[in-house]
Amino acid sequence: MDVYQCIRSRLTVRDFKPDAVPEGVVRRMLQAARWSPSARNRQPWHFIVIRNRDTLAEIGSIASSGGFIGGAPMAVAVVMARGGRPEFDAGRSLQHMELAAWAEGVGGCVAGVRGEENEKVKELLGIPEDKELVTVVAFGYPTDEAAAGTKVRKELPEIAHSERFGQSYGI
Amino acid sequence: MDVYQCIRSRLTVRDFKPDAVPEGVVRRMLQAARWSPSARNRQPWHFIVIRNRDTLAEIGSIASSGGFIGGAPMAVAVVMARGGRPEFDAGRSLQHMELAAWAEGVGGCVAGVRGEENEKVKELLGIPEDKELVTVVAFGYPTDEAAAGTKVRKELPEIAHSERFGQSYGI
Repeated sequence: MDVYQCIRSRLTVRDFKPDAVPEGVVRRMLQAARWSPSARNRQPWHFIVIRNRDTLAEIGSIASSGGFIGGAPMAVAVVMARGGRPEFDAGRSLQHMELAAWAEGVGGCVAGVRGEENEKVKELLGIPEDKELVTVVAFGYPTDEAAAGTKVRKELPEIAHSERFGQSYGI
Repeated sequence: MDVYQCIRSRLTVRDFKPDAVPEGVVRRMLQAARWSPSARNRQPWHFIVIRNRDTLAEIGSIASSGGFIGGAPMAVAVVMARGGRPEFDAGRSLQHMELAAWAEGVGGCVAGVRGEENEKVKELLGIPEDKELVTVVAFGYPTDEAAAGTKVRKELPEIAHSERFGQSYGI
């Protein structure tokens, strides 16, 4: 799929068909994430691929904003070494993964797991204390309804500036 | 360009030809960034497009790790509203922008601007106190040498795990 078209059409997907995501697609998603840039090229990322139904259900019940994980055929926990810019680098890497997935028809949705929820999921997945669990992302093929969703975004003039903050970009 | 090929081939570029980045390309970069997902779809981002040579030179001299900005034909300052997950959302959005740029032959490099440097650049660009300057990213057409660079990344088995942290993904 053309990259611009992929970026433009990608939707956040929370409702999934039961179909498994083929191994070849998961591998492309992992490769895409691996090719991301990172601060000083530290590549502080780890990705845990979760397909076990009990584990997915348990994460879905722990994460108050991530119930949809329980209904996904798979999820990826994004784990970062501390130091550097873990959130920034995780975001860059995840976006590569999401686009590689979308090009294969697979959508995803990020679940925030903060505070106590974060500790519980870390324990469940055996994530070492010195690593940071940034998010768990559910992936799968969208239901027909989810695939028909629309993207709602601010218009460019609201977010684009020329030379200085507040100077209209004139779009 | 195919999305997977774009992700795979994208290089971080610090050395630029003097050629300007055409307005149409900048617009595609901004659109791509705008189409990014964000926590609760808050879209907390602002993008300041900088082409003024004096401004670029001044940012390059302020940012101790971003001297290359002074030699770039343009840069984009990524500014986020506070609250939510500004670094994570900035990373996702920036990656859309970088891929849209690369598809047009334009490369970029992130400069960290922290502490006092951050305050100075915020003042220079008129960024309100209540907004967060996450990074300034230089963009331009790579020199022939920069375009011939290679990507060095950890191998998948080092970063991919199956079901639990530390369990080999078996790639």
